[in-house]
Amino acid sequence: MGGESGPGVTVPALLNCLGKHQSVEAILYGDLQKVAPYLSLCNDQALLSRVKIIHCEGEVLDTDKPSDVIRAKTNSSMSLAVSAVAKKYADACISAGNTGALMGLGLIKLRTLPGISRPAICTTLPTVSGRSYVLDLGANVECSPEQLHQFSVLGSLTAYLLDDIKQPSVRLLNVGVEEGKGSNQLQRTAHLLSADPQVNYCGFVEGNGIFKGLANVVVCDGFAGNIALKATEGFAMMIATILEDLLRNSWLARVTLGVMSRSFEDLKDRLDPALYNGAYLLGLHGIVIKSHGSASKKAFENALEVAIEAARHNLPKALAPLLTDKFITNNKESV
Amino acid sequence: MGGESGPGVTVPALLNCLGKHQSVEAILYGDLQKVAPYLSLCNDQALLSRVKIIHCEGEVLDTDKPSDVIRAKTNSSMSLAVSAVAKKYADACISAGNTGALMGLGLIKLRTLPGISRPAICTTLPTVSGRSYVLDLGANVECSPEQLHQFSVLGSLTAYLLDDIKQPSVRLLNVGVEEGKGSNQLQRTAHLLSADPQVNYCGFVEGNGIFKGLANVVVCDGFAGNIALKATEGFAMMIATILEDLLRNSWLARVTLGVMSRSFEDLKDRLDPALYNGAYLLGLHGIVIKSHGSASKKAFENALEVAIEAARHNLPKALAPLLTDKFITNNKESV
Repeated sequence: MGGESGPGVTVPALLNCLGKHQSVEAILYGDLQKVAPYLSLCNDQALLSRVKIIHCEGEVLDTDKPSDVIRAKTNSSMSLAVSAVAKKYADACISAGNTGALMGLGLIKLRTLPGISRPAICTTLPTVSGRSYVLDLGANVECSPEQLHQFSVLGSLTAYLLDDIKQPSVRLLNVGVEEGKGSNQLQRTAHLLSADPQVNYCGFVEGNGIFKGLANVVVCDGFAGNIALKATEGFAMMIATILEDLLRNSWLARVTLGVMSRSFEDLKDRLDPALYNGAYLLGLHGIVIKSHGSASKKAFENALEVAIEAARHNLPKALAPLLTDKFITNNKESV
Repeated sequence: MGGESGPGVTVPALLNCLGKHQSVEAILYGDLQKVAPYLSLCNDQALLSRVKIIHCEGEVLDTDKPSDVIRAKTNSSMSLAVSAVAKKYADACISAGNTGALMGLGLIKLRTLPGISRPAICTTLPTVSGRSYVLDLGANVECSPEQLHQFSVLGSLTAYLLDDIKQPSVRLLNVGVEEGKGSNQLQRTAHLLSADPQVNYCGFVEGNGIFKGLANVVVCDGFAGNIALKATEGFAMMIATILEDLLRNSWLARVTLGVMSRSFEDLKDRLDPALYNGAYLLGLHGIVIKSHGSASKKAFENALEVAIEAARHNLPKALAPLLTDKFITNNKESV
């Protein structure tokens, strides 16, 4: 368990999180030998009593094919963690490992909600006015209009349940906001969304509109979503690198930054990608959260918070009855 | 002429630019009544003698269909400006107007280079180590592998001619770097690029790799390119908004920012979107530069600089003979 960074990141993040949430218990699936040293650093016996460890020798690698994981790695930490959700031992599962394998295991062990053909990776992104749900972020590189419709319903209901927004505005990511813009696939999706009274469809949105907060839910295929997310991430990292260079080369900058550190902390708190780590695999009969593979301790802690929030709202169970019979019937063929 | 901001932005930008470049002359296509007040603010008669004004009453609107502009708006400022390049009255044309119309006029009046089926919108983006050429940014929402191959050749030769890079590294924008990732279209493009000895193809790149400077040239269809560019732009604007809020609400931040203004100017100079305004319509027999519709004076000035740089390097003329016979023959069918 633990993605690229391993238990040196995930275990301290978990212990921190348990310290904050007294009612949360954790099952840790992983190699006991690798996990134990980090657990032994904690002296709080009451807290440790809330951690159950299941030793697993099998590990899913980033290079593993999802089909191979499902067939051969049945005793891997990832496989057992997803099973724990399926068997109701756990309310949610969090992994920083191979996304494709996690998707595959989720599909096989948890199955999709009625009317949903495949789950979408969904995260919240910061906007000038709050946060927006964006999906899909890479699970489905190509999507049919029916799938994009399903993602719109899932995103919309999630924003309603988690952020208490009565009629979340839904927009489709496109290269322009005019009606005729974009591919045939987007045109057909717009048509489906306009015809669905359950979706508050508000038209197209361009890439910059995500951060302007022009919609509560932004829907796109996994290719576009992944490109938008990663490009932004790369830009943010470039700014950080340039700022670091500036600080290294200027004592004046270092001194003044020290003075105004409070303001910068405010800025960092709003923009820190760590605080947006933790993406839902939306559309399954159970909560599965994907953390960035190279997540920091703070970022993995955020993924745990995302899981706890979803579990507190009983996400898939609360969501399922909101899917209408008409939606389920219409989408039966595409499932 | 002048896009959303109009001659109040473009004329002062032009005059500034002419002040810097003594050997440059300008032909201004536009409504004399709207243009004149801004020209009259300039007292430098020698500079003004380098500006020729062609009065045009027709104007291309953002809502105009390209086909309508080509057919009916033959006396518009945009149409006449593109004609000036075709008739060799001008070495380059710059417009902040309707992108589709500019593309259409470029195609009709300037035609594409041999082996090129359609032009691509190409711009340079800042990276941690310099700048990268990214194309297409929205002119061609869907592209065939042959078109993406053509864009790779165009981008590569442009980086060679303008930035003096002997073998520019070319990468395809994708949702992962592993060979099997992405759509069938990208797989086929990768195959075409690997087989072309003129292209230094280095594999796939993810969105964050653009800003890491992992390639001199990043190639994608217009949909992906537009999403990446606009998402980044939106994120940058969000940071600017948050920073402004911080400064408004904190006297300490304002004072310290005053002290370290030099460092911040350095940062702004590297990141300011204005300094990346001005995109090439690459692949035409002539230089056509597209400015952002809502460009500031500084941004429009940058678009003028892009045009001057391209003209100094005699871009399409220097590029055309570098297209190999094999490339032209192979791409004949797709043109």
